[in-house]
Amino acid sequence: MSLKEDVGIKAASYVKNGMTVGLGTGSTAYYMIKEIGRKVKEENLNVVGVPTSSTSKKQAEEMGIPIKSIDEVDKVDVIIDGADEISADFQGMKGGGAALLFEKIVATYTDQVIWIVDESKMVDKLGKFPLPVEVVPYGQQQLFQLFAKKGYKPSFRMDQKAKKVTDSGHSIIDLHLEQIDHPEQLAKELDETVGVIDHGLFLNMVNTVIIGRPSGAEIISDIR
Amino acid sequence: MSLKEDVGIKAASYVKNGMTVGLGTGSTAYYMIKEIGRKVKEENLNVVGVPTSSTSKKQAEEMGIPIKSIDEVDKVDVIIDGADEISADFQGMKGGGAALLFEKIVATYTDQVIWIVDESKMVDKLGKFPLPVEVVPYGQQQLFQLFAKKGYKPSFRMDQKAKKVTDSGHSIIDLHLEQIDHPEQLAKELDETVGVIDHGLFLNMVNTVIIGRPSGAEIISDIR
Repeated sequence: MSLKEDVGIKAASYVKNGMTVGLGTGSTAYYMIKEIGRKVKEENLNVVGVPTSSTSKKQAEEMGIPIKSIDEVDKVDVIIDGADEISADFQGMKGGGAALLFEKIVATYTDQVIWIVDESKMVDKLGKFPLPVEVVPYGQQQLFQLFAKKGYKPSFRMDQKAKKVTDSGHSIIDLHLEQIDHPEQLAKELDETVGVIDHGLFLNMVNTVIIGRPSGAEIISDIR
Repeated sequence: MSLKEDVGIKAASYVKNGMTVGLGTGSTAYYMIKEIGRKVKEENLNVVGVPTSSTSKKQAEEMGIPIKSIDEVDKVDVIIDGADEISADFQGMKGGGAALLFEKIVATYTDQVIWIVDESKMVDKLGKFPLPVEVVPYGQQQLFQLFAKKGYKPSFRMDQKAKKVTDSGHSIIDLHLEQIDHPEQLAKELDETVGVIDHGLFLNMVNTVIIGRPSGAEIISDIR
């Protein structure tokens, strides 16, 4: 069993009967959704899934997990999602899979946020992984130049066919920052930049991290 | 001649040969685009227009004004646009026509920002006019509830057919605030709210305001 599979299955044990569950996106979340689907089928687990992308929606449907949109539920009890980096003080970076906007929206209305990662994602400081910024396509070249001038080393992530890469039809600009010393300051700056819809910094958001290690999963709770 | 027509024509005199001109949206901007179109045709005015909406794009094309997208020009020399409210300290509210996002994007990359209004738009404080907030459709019901809890008296602006009202396919939630005492604080709060793409507060942005009055247009310059 891979580390990803191990934590994906562990995370599914947080899902109890009657819960509304945010379904994250990515290679680790894949195993979590698979395990929830197994429990729905084999153990009559009664849950409603709230997908965070067209990918997790499709997988949940295939697994027979009943799903609703975030706008069709009162709130979400728990969301289980992957992360691209988690810093020593439990700030996160997400969006390698271009689903950051819906992931952040669902997490905003969720009681308990659980991130599941293999140990390679635990870092001292964020920034080695490129920071995804979801932007309005109109003006994206101007914004790209603005980021370049600031020294943020931007690159476009482009679907070669569609030229738009997110489920909302927006573009992603990746910032190659190497090290983010002040995540909160950068998050504010990006939030206030015209044309920026959202970004991959998930700050003060996680309650529980499940880390896959060869010696067995490590669970860190009550972070917030 | 109406006050709107008067200021629209006055504003067009700011457009000089060789300029790249942001073309605003709305009933006052209509007259400005019409006058620029006349000058292009009758006076061989040589300009490139950068439209801020599908409406202003269509009008410019019909008037024979050459147009480019904001991403096809280096920068914009001057943008001329309407406003729904301008406060005594020259902060603006825009977006009654649902074009606020592209208007703000173009204005961001523009040297000189000119607003053209009839005198009814000049107010002491912003807020009588509902503040438009452009939001991601996914999660919009949750966001609506959040605004309602904060006492912002939200209402959805809905295209009855499409259910999405902006050129980008986003939704608009209008906040009925009556009076905005701290625009900068509210702008920051909205910028940092997940699911908010942008909003109608245009702060510290205008250089020149042309106000249509029955006694003749008043021009206030060098504001920034």
